[in-house]
Amino acid sequence: MTTKAATTSIPIHDIIARRWSPRAFDAERSVSSGQITSLLEAARWAPSCFGDEPWRFVICNKSTNETAWQQALECLAPKNQEWAVNAPVLILACTDSLFRQNGKPNRWAQYDTGAAAISLCMQAVDLGLAAHQMGGFDPDAARSAFNIPEQFTPMAMIAVGHQADANILDEDFKAAELVERKRWPLPENCFDGEWNKSVT
Amino acid sequence: MTTKAATTSIPIHDIIARRWSPRAFDAERSVSSGQITSLLEAARWAPSCFGDEPWRFVICNKSTNETAWQQALECLAPKNQEWAVNAPVLILACTDSLFRQNGKPNRWAQYDTGAAAISLCMQAVDLGLAAHQMGGFDPDAARSAFNIPEQFTPMAMIAVGHQADANILDEDFKAAELVERKRWPLPENCFDGEWNKSVT
Repeated sequence: MTTKAATTSIPIHDIIARRWSPRAFDAERSVSSGQITSLLEAARWAPSCFGDEPWRFVICNKSTNETAWQQALECLAPKNQEWAVNAPVLILACTDSLFRQNGKPNRWAQYDTGAAAISLCMQAVDLGLAAHQMGGFDPDAARSAFNIPEQFTPMAMIAVGHQADANILDEDFKAAELVERKRWPLPENCFDGEWNKSVT
Repeated sequence: MTTKAATTSIPIHDIIARRWSPRAFDAERSVSSGQITSLLEAARWAPSCFGDEPWRFVICNKSTNETAWQQALECLAPKNQEWAVNAPVLILACTDSLFRQNGKPNRWAQYDTGAAAISLCMQAVDLGLAAHQMGGFDPDAARSAFNIPEQFTPMAMIAVGHQADANILDEDFKAAELVERKRWPLPENCFDGEWNKSVT
């Protein structure tokens, strides 16, 4: 199985370093309901502004609700469908644009939902699963398929399953699966006390 | 020291369960530059749409740049200043509203920045530090203090340091520090294949 731990200048925690977004999923291995609960518990304990928990997750598990899973799959961009078809679980992450307590706009809704979603992905690593978040899906199609009210915004579709060997992928995807992971150098995005003064 | 591991129906990974947002920080213990690098590396490896990495972090370390740290402190809501004054590092998390590759709006900018920021907070747990994100600060004051360009949005100030005993806090904060952590039950925010059909 392809493992692509992050290359860092200094150690970081294992589940942060080992989390990445593979495309090779094993269509024959389902995710148990206990595993799904664990993923959702991890997301649940993310922090949020005023404790609002603006995230909502729609779980589409092929093993228990193939209709919902098929609907989720069909919302994906065609290139994503090619590989995500092997992921036994697709989870739609949505965010509530309004605070529960007063109905006013929550400017942290998306920020907090991103935190909950990556917590779910890290928990997947801990369970020996893989998770791959996609922005490449049609949010209007998702809204229609899952009857999502206006105040909620579909943010990401998360493919979850057991990783498979990169050889199951076609050549383009296989190359992407095996290439080294890259990030901007730290000084590009991290500043020392003032804007654009890079950390050293 | 107060530990408030999440109460879950099924186990989740230790650094996810143990991450919480204390207010009692030890003003006498600084955070090393190696620890700060580790925090930033954890954030760096978060996923982002098109690999854009829309997050920017301004590190205000009292030990190395007291002026910047003081500026960050003064951006906070007065109630937050009362306890955050003991945090030796304040990190301003900002997000780039535009994609680097084409200058178009990035609808995942805040979502991805939230993921990077919580990765930083989890890495703090791994290092034996504590991190507490705050939305309670004046974004305009932060923009002015740190010369933040228009296309970037200040999202959160993150207090980082060594945790201290809850007894250093005044009575109101101490009560909050010691109260049980709470979240909505899973079925409130997690749906099974369709909107508002709660997971069981």
